[in-house]
Amino acid sequence: MIGLTFLCAGRVKEKHFADATAEYIKRLGAYCDVSFAEVREERTSENPSDAEISAALRREGAEILAKIPKGAFTIALCVEGKPLSTEEFAETLRTITLDHSKLCVVIGSSNGLSGDVKRAAQLRLSMSKMTLPHALARVMAAEQLYRAFNLLNGGKYHK
Amino acid sequence: MIGLTFLCAGRVKEKHFADATAEYIKRLGAYCDVSFAEVREERTSENPSDAEISAALRREGAEILAKIPKGAFTIALCVEGKPLSTEEFAETLRTITLDHSKLCVVIGSSNGLSGDVKRAAQLRLSMSKMTLPHALARVMAAEQLYRAFNLLNGGKYHK
Repeated sequence: MIGLTFLCAGRVKEKHFADATAEYIKRLGAYCDVSFAEVREERTSENPSDAEISAALRREGAEILAKIPKGAFTIALCVEGKPLSTEEFAETLRTITLDHSKLCVVIGSSNGLSGDVKRAAQLRLSMSKMTLPHALARVMAAEQLYRAFNLLNGGKYHK
Repeated sequence: MIGLTFLCAGRVKEKHFADATAEYIKRLGAYCDVSFAEVREERTSENPSDAEISAALRREGAEILAKIPKGAFTIALCVEGKPLSTEEFAETLRTITLDHSKLCVVIGSSNGLSGDVKRAAQLRLSMSKMTLPHALARVMAAEQLYRAFNLLNGGKYHK
């Protein structure tokens, strides 16, 4: 069973999004040895400059990089990443699991992810051209991981 | 204020998704005269054939078409539609509101939308290449509508 680290920056305030993510992470337990890790979102001023945001992202990025398990294939979610269909994502995961026993999926804070984290990832994945709130990106990523693993395992969830 | 009909097929079972959608629809009230309408999802057998699914979609589609307000610019969400960024979606909405006083956004059931509905829509929009559960598609559509209208109105939500 592949080890999956679901690594996120920031906190989810909305109970509905936290509940939805938790539900898919629970279901992922059927296919992966899942762990959930969170790094703190750096505080910025009310109207942060680009430089202030970059500095905050760099600090968050350093914490994220420290939490990526050694040897894990790392997928960073970002709007400018590669768009994949569910079937393509499942096939990508199948190929990854041939060579890797650990997978790490990284989701940034409300400010996104630092360039350091994006460069460290083997795959930059875009779930949408649209900008999503990070809390919703977590839900969608957890759902797509569940959907893809279910598909690879011959499940009936994806029709 | 533009009239917005959020028209969906099927029911949402998960409280977290219903709550998340309701939250964005409430917030949309600041920018649109919003109404929410639902048509019943047709029952199918345990392992429906393609023909059975098509027949169910056609019946749902007829109900959907009957509920689209006359003269409303209609956007159908489907995976094969046009992918837009949030900024492009906002600009599209801005242009629509120049000529239309009513907008209708249609989201299918777990089986999707019939060809009739897709053809009747002036815009087929894809929020993702990935297949989403219809309950999550509702959340995402409501969030993007709120995000786009907030952006058009100079709000700070989209950063």
